[in-house]
Amino acid sequence: MLLLIPGPVQTDPRVRAAMATDIAPWDEDFRAEYAAIRAKVLEIAGGIPGEHATLPLQGSGHFIVEAAIRTFIPTGGRFLLPMNGTYAERIHRLASEAGRVPVTLDIPDTRPVTEAELDAAFAAHPEVTHLCAVVSETGSGIINDPEVMGAAARRAGKRVVLDAVSSFGAWPFRLAAHPEVDAVLFTPNKCLEGMPGSGFAVCPIARTRALVGQAGSWNFDLADVLLRAERTGFGSPRFTPAAQVLRAFGVALRLYEEEGGQPARLARYRENMRVLREGLVALGLRPYLVAEHQGPIIGTFHQPGGQFELQRFVDALKRRGVLISNFHNTVEPTFRVGCIGAVTPDDMRRAVSAIGDVLRELASP
Amino acid sequence: MLLLIPGPVQTDPRVRAAMATDIAPWDEDFRAEYAAIRAKVLEIAGGIPGEHATLPLQGSGHFIVEAAIRTFIPTGGRFLLPMNGTYAERIHRLASEAGRVPVTLDIPDTRPVTEAELDAAFAAHPEVTHLCAVVSETGSGIINDPEVMGAAARRAGKRVVLDAVSSFGAWPFRLAAHPEVDAVLFTPNKCLEGMPGSGFAVCPIARTRALVGQAGSWNFDLADVLLRAERTGFGSPRFTPAAQVLRAFGVALRLYEEEGGQPARLARYRENMRVLREGLVALGLRPYLVAEHQGPIIGTFHQPGGQFELQRFVDALKRRGVLISNFHNTVEPTFRVGCIGAVTPDDMRRAVSAIGDVLRELASP
Repeated sequence: MLLLIPGPVQTDPRVRAAMATDIAPWDEDFRAEYAAIRAKVLEIAGGIPGEHATLPLQGSGHFIVEAAIRTFIPTGGRFLLPMNGTYAERIHRLASEAGRVPVTLDIPDTRPVTEAELDAAFAAHPEVTHLCAVVSETGSGIINDPEVMGAAARRAGKRVVLDAVSSFGAWPFRLAAHPEVDAVLFTPNKCLEGMPGSGFAVCPIARTRALVGQAGSWNFDLADVLLRAERTGFGSPRFTPAAQVLRAFGVALRLYEEEGGQPARLARYRENMRVLREGLVALGLRPYLVAEHQGPIIGTFHQPGGQFELQRFVDALKRRGVLISNFHNTVEPTFRVGCIGAVTPDDMRRAVSAIGDVLRELASP
Repeated sequence: MLLLIPGPVQTDPRVRAAMATDIAPWDEDFRAEYAAIRAKVLEIAGGIPGEHATLPLQGSGHFIVEAAIRTFIPTGGRFLLPMNGTYAERIHRLASEAGRVPVTLDIPDTRPVTEAELDAAFAAHPEVTHLCAVVSETGSGIINDPEVMGAAARRAGKRVVLDAVSSFGAWPFRLAAHPEVDAVLFTPNKCLEGMPGSGFAVCPIARTRALVGQAGSWNFDLADVLLRAERTGFGSPRFTPAAQVLRAFGVALRLYEEEGGQPARLARYRENMRVLREGLVALGLRPYLVAEHQGPIIGTFHQPGGQFELQRFVDALKRRGVLISNFHNTVEPTFRVGCIGAVTPDDMRRAVSAIGDVLRELASP
């Protein structure tokens, strides 16, 4: 089966094979492995050793996002939230339930937020301390660029929390060049092509250390994760981790490096996307996004008219060995195809061909 | 390596092998698998279908405990907490940081809480609505019996949250016979011999459904987990799960059933414990607990006098293929040996023999 969902992505068999052993997470033997993952993540984030730290957290992307919002924004604190996708809506809900107050900036789900919009919003809302934003929206496929958002935030003197869950490792980002960033957040099971079960934040050490207890949740307190890390030379997890998932992530990071790191991964995903878009356009399908706003992660296409039913389409594709998401997260009805994971342009050609077959099959009486 | 830590435990190779495939957690094919795990867990918990529900949560044991406390006890709410081990201390901290107020009942870490102590504490603290308690303390190895605690709680009209993380599936418990229980909590990587990366609560449906939003955290709101489950026929995870860990858990549950379920597992662990205790006593070591208070999960022994250093002892044991915990969680210095996981009495004999060798080695000049 070729997995083309927004994640968890298809992985290399060597990554999955790494999970076949028992692991004692507090044993000395695991310390070096765990510390090496932290160091490698810091390098990919473009962080500075001693100034920034990799803070792992058990669970899913939602967990690491709630942890960062709780840790860096106090109860009752306000932050700016550009609303142009489902994951922004999720930040809205999880922050609100945690007692933090989003100030929304409404934008169509078909394009990124602009610098001018951010400038205007910061001017209109001096009470916000932070911008929290989703870098890659997997509903539509747009990218809210950290460069654009960072420039506006720095001008306004605001701090930034970046939900980079579905872009980290592929979309360019260097934490060292973003002094406005409190946290960049991701999970291993997207562009780094690991397994699901853990989240990560990369954060400035001094700022984080000063905020112990602000989270109002021991589990979601990234400052406490940092204190524990510092006490143990970054070699020891705070609570029981999904240790096999971490070991698999270590292998995924090695493969990432062997492929050529971020530039190579971005180039492969871009080529996957080019093959997908050109192929589906040739089949008469209409992309949800104009080319200029199309990120390299997820391709989204209007559902064809007539009798189209998404689950039927997905089932027919699955019978041909291609699995895509069976729900859509855009304002208009769409279907989406992931271009990330251990998949190649040839895989995408196979997917395009399967989609063509299915459209013909479903159109015939 | 023979893993005799308090967890994650040693697993059957078939359990780990189940993690070797990619999984799309929202695909129709995973629904039945996910629903079957929920149903089987409900059965092991002795719950009643339609009355109780299995509520999975990403992350570790700490996460599911915080989720249950937030979901069932309001902000500022008070609960009774018997303090006789490290995991009770952890409940104290995570509840306090979440704004819930523990009323502590101090007990030595060498014995369980008694019914009379609970009766007196409930009488002295009419303001508490709940008892939250750790069933099996992996620091010392004692068991706070849910039968004893349930009887006192029912008499006082109190609700109960049971941290059964390290006992569930081995220590007898039938939710149907415990109308006072709001939640019984566990992780798959202890007595059910699965992998780490997920937590579970089993809860009464009607009570849980009524508490949506009380958690003050979307991620930790078990009522929201329930709503999502009910909307999807219990077949769909709320957020991205550690899907491979869940698949492995499905295999672990099948092996549990094949072994003979709870009675068989308890019998094996008890025999493991008997071999361990008798063996180490014969070597001149002194158990931390009197036999009457010794649970079947963890055996704890006073550190021998003289030049004993725990890490040196652990390292020497590891060179002989036996891995135990390299820290102690008791009032007095001890070392501890797990009797749970895919290990047999013969494995325990091997461990006893290795411990004997190491003690002789460390004693010789």
